[in-house]
Amino acid sequence: MSQTNIYESQLDKCGANFTPLSPLSYLERSASVYPDYLSVIYGGRRYCWAETYARCRRLASALARRGIGKGDTVSIIAANIPEMYESHFGVPMAGAVLNTINTRLDAGVIAFILGHAEARVLLVDPEFSGVVAEALKQVDLPDLLVVDIADPSFEGGQLVGSLTYDALLAEGDPEFDWSLPDDEWDAISLNYTSGTTGNPKGVVYHHRGAALNATSNILTWGMPQHPVYLWTLPMFHCNGWCFPWTMAANAGISVCLRAVRDEAVFQAFRDHQVTHFCGAPIVLNMLANAPDALKQFDHAIRVMTAGAPPPAAVIEKMEVMGIEVTHVYGLTETYGPSVVCAWKDEWNTRSGEERAALKVRQGVKYVALSGLMVADPDTMEPVPADGETMGEIFMQGNIVMKGYLKNPDATDKAFRGGWFASGDLGVMHPDGYIALKDRSKDIIISGGENISSVEVEDVLYKHPAVLEAAVVAKPDDKWGETPCAFVELKPGAGADAAGLIAHCRDNMAHFKSPKTVVFGVLPKTSTGKIQKFLLRERARAL
Amino acid sequence: MSQTNIYESQLDKCGANFTPLSPLSYLERSASVYPDYLSVIYGGRRYCWAETYARCRRLASALARRGIGKGDTVSIIAANIPEMYESHFGVPMAGAVLNTINTRLDAGVIAFILGHAEARVLLVDPEFSGVVAEALKQVDLPDLLVVDIADPSFEGGQLVGSLTYDALLAEGDPEFDWSLPDDEWDAISLNYTSGTTGNPKGVVYHHRGAALNATSNILTWGMPQHPVYLWTLPMFHCNGWCFPWTMAANAGISVCLRAVRDEAVFQAFRDHQVTHFCGAPIVLNMLANAPDALKQFDHAIRVMTAGAPPPAAVIEKMEVMGIEVTHVYGLTETYGPSVVCAWKDEWNTRSGEERAALKVRQGVKYVALSGLMVADPDTMEPVPADGETMGEIFMQGNIVMKGYLKNPDATDKAFRGGWFASGDLGVMHPDGYIALKDRSKDIIISGGENISSVEVEDVLYKHPAVLEAAVVAKPDDKWGETPCAFVELKPGAGADAAGLIAHCRDNMAHFKSPKTVVFGVLPKTSTGKIQKFLLRERARAL
Repeated sequence: MSQTNIYESQLDKCGANFTPLSPLSYLERSASVYPDYLSVIYGGRRYCWAETYARCRRLASALARRGIGKGDTVSIIAANIPEMYESHFGVPMAGAVLNTINTRLDAGVIAFILGHAEARVLLVDPEFSGVVAEALKQVDLPDLLVVDIADPSFEGGQLVGSLTYDALLAEGDPEFDWSLPDDEWDAISLNYTSGTTGNPKGVVYHHRGAALNATSNILTWGMPQHPVYLWTLPMFHCNGWCFPWTMAANAGISVCLRAVRDEAVFQAFRDHQVTHFCGAPIVLNMLANAPDALKQFDHAIRVMTAGAPPPAAVIEKMEVMGIEVTHVYGLTETYGPSVVCAWKDEWNTRSGEERAALKVRQGVKYVALSGLMVADPDTMEPVPADGETMGEIFMQGNIVMKGYLKNPDATDKAFRGGWFASGDLGVMHPDGYIALKDRSKDIIISGGENISSVEVEDVLYKHPAVLEAAVVAKPDDKWGETPCAFVELKPGAGADAAGLIAHCRDNMAHFKSPKTVVFGVLPKTSTGKIQKFLLRERARAL
Repeated sequence: MSQTNIYESQLDKCGANFTPLSPLSYLERSASVYPDYLSVIYGGRRYCWAETYARCRRLASALARRGIGKGDTVSIIAANIPEMYESHFGVPMAGAVLNTINTRLDAGVIAFILGHAEARVLLVDPEFSGVVAEALKQVDLPDLLVVDIADPSFEGGQLVGSLTYDALLAEGDPEFDWSLPDDEWDAISLNYTSGTTGNPKGVVYHHRGAALNATSNILTWGMPQHPVYLWTLPMFHCNGWCFPWTMAANAGISVCLRAVRDEAVFQAFRDHQVTHFCGAPIVLNMLANAPDALKQFDHAIRVMTAGAPPPAAVIEKMEVMGIEVTHVYGLTETYGPSVVCAWKDEWNTRSGEERAALKVRQGVKYVALSGLMVADPDTMEPVPADGETMGEIFMQGNIVMKGYLKNPDATDKAFRGGWFASGDLGVMHPDGYIALKDRSKDIIISGGENISSVEVEDVLYKHPAVLEAAVVAKPDDKWGETPCAFVELKPGAGADAAGLIAHCRDNMAHFKSPKTVVFGVLPKTSTGKIQKFLLRERARAL
């Protein structure tokens, strides 16, 4: 090496050659380059980028005039409406942090979040004003500014705030001279996890990660410029997997929908020539099982899905319908998707079933993720890439959260040896693709053998009568545990326990087959995840 | 604001959530996700990503074993061959800085560069071993390791080094455990400007900027995944506009060509189903004027071009041929392209001539560029966006260089008030698109009126007999200066001075028309730029 490093002398950062990374830059660029292009569509409302930018600047300006700035939290509880989109820019343009609240939470949890986040402002969609009014009674935030997002297209819901969103915008300057953060490590948003037990944890995102994952969505998915994106994934969920910012980077159109129903989705496909959307497997399942008369569209559509490993059968049905599925995986702690089942051309010649089996794997790291491994959680040694040895999934990189707000113990526990411990279990296949198996508590140990509940569920989903299925451990005197299946049948479909068990035994090792089958509607969390801890209680009580 | 910022407490950077940005990560990802996909094609040689990665690790390992590391310069003088591609990764993977040398330079300038860069290693393509041998006599670098890139497909050229590239690779470990830089601000490459006067300046790029412009190429151009990219742009030129790193981010194929000739280019289009390439206007001109029999291909191809403002007529000819032109603009100091003439759908209905006139403008900032303005260089005030008022073009953002190596005076002069002063003159159109007019010394002032030499050249190029044209100022007793045109005609085409002047007067204000026309071959710099300073001397001597 050289005695002195000639590349470190008088080559410093300055205003000319260094700008903090932030997704706010994408909005500014789309507004300056494509001012007349459509940005947001919601029913009869249409905005172009110049308008969206002006509204976001008004919002930022109004917040700043009311003393909201760096380190302050602005919460919002809203459906996928334009104001929700705008808050992803207007709030951080004021230097503040956006806290999107899950609309399905109860008043107690909402009160906890507002208090924990020390919210200074709360933007409320009237659809959720009832539960918000309840929550506000339970939290001590006397200075909280509550703002109603009046939506003429929504009937019902009371106004609970001191002014409307439109009135707030009117206070602001559409030419507001906002600034990028001084430091790209500054917080941009706060997303609470929907833990099944205990208080939710507040996951903090920064501008750098949001900017990088927004473009990583484009790079990893191979999105073209100017896509038409339908909002079926809630924006409150990991900031809509960063897609509000992605659409600004790509100058795409956000088609907003207040409620995700099959008819409305298919109509949006047609009316707006939607090219892309994201959705939980439950949304895909709904579309796949919709009446054929609704399924009218004649252009290419791509969907990104994540969440519970989607059943192979659902993926297959989507593709038959002409919707190309990209399977991703991530957590609130990783800005939404950070792993993708990158598709290989050579797989196109496989059978539909084989293709679906390949696609059901979670895959490889996103462009913006630096490290992904399946490892022994004690030794941090990667497991063999044999597709069988289970380990915990670890990630590292710029799209891993700053940490949990005001919870250094949880942050320390999550960050281990330079990695983020996901808490999810999986395997590494020989080709480097990971496959999620189960959270550790979802593994069923029967006669000393590990049974993956996901594997059993996958077989159940292949039965034509099954709409949804979840498998948990049932205590058993002889075997320790046995698999117990909870099944919801399709409307009008007929199947009995013996038939489903026989189907399982025909399609997998006999010891993995459920010994018990319970029929009925499956309980779900506010984000649509099946609440296995409730099913586990029921199984124990059987 | 809050008394204490809750978002700045115990939410620090750590190995789990922070990784320095670097284009090296893209290579590692493509090798792990797409190991069997083709990465590089050169004649009969074909590499897949696993092989390219292994070769780059060998190179890094071999360099490290020879003591090359952080702060050291590794120079290369080579055509667009696989080893040139590999050096873009293998050199920085060793922590060192890649210095690509323009193959058209003379021995004296090469000697200056090697000395100024304090090169520790020089990789030499035999095609250039003659001039390198000359240069080595003129520089005092006794410890310089010279490595010959033996290319069996190239006949001629002597070996001037102490070992071959293949022998060097053989010293290295294909599993070398390389590291990302500690700091994304660390230098990754060094590119000398081809100044027309004085010694060249060494422009230093860093990992952060290289990573961001590599993906910005994709985002700004709307490139799909897995493109097939033909190397007509020299990789020594601004690191091939960052496209070696872009192809790694996008897992695309680099089709290498030693020499850019029309027949070879069209054949590569067909043989490899090339989807994208970049080239100077001179390359486009060559393709546009090739015999029709050569122009055989039946798939979509896109080209990015920059450099001198490309004549509208050349753009039009490319599009007629079925090659979609994206016009970009940038400088060595901005990692190559940093401005793009982003195309609007609504322009598609315009006439071919109107479309070409819109496309000839330089445009708007790249996704990775933060600021772009045309301003008065004294006051730094932006000029009115009227398409007429001239000013200097300024840029700011993460794809502006670290600075000039060992030249703080030049760096200080280039960075002014938080902006990089490009030295180029232009106007801002009402729609926010900039158009380059001239470097200040290229403006012709005739009778007190400014004449843009580019505008006169554009009219000359519309004449069917003109192959290339350059216009400079000729001293004039009456007018101060008058426009003098140097013109090279197409083979077999006939035109005289009077005819060309009449053509100009028919198509623009009479005072702008050349008063003098000189026919002959135009002198060019090593990067293909017309050497106007030589023409100015000739015009003075007329």
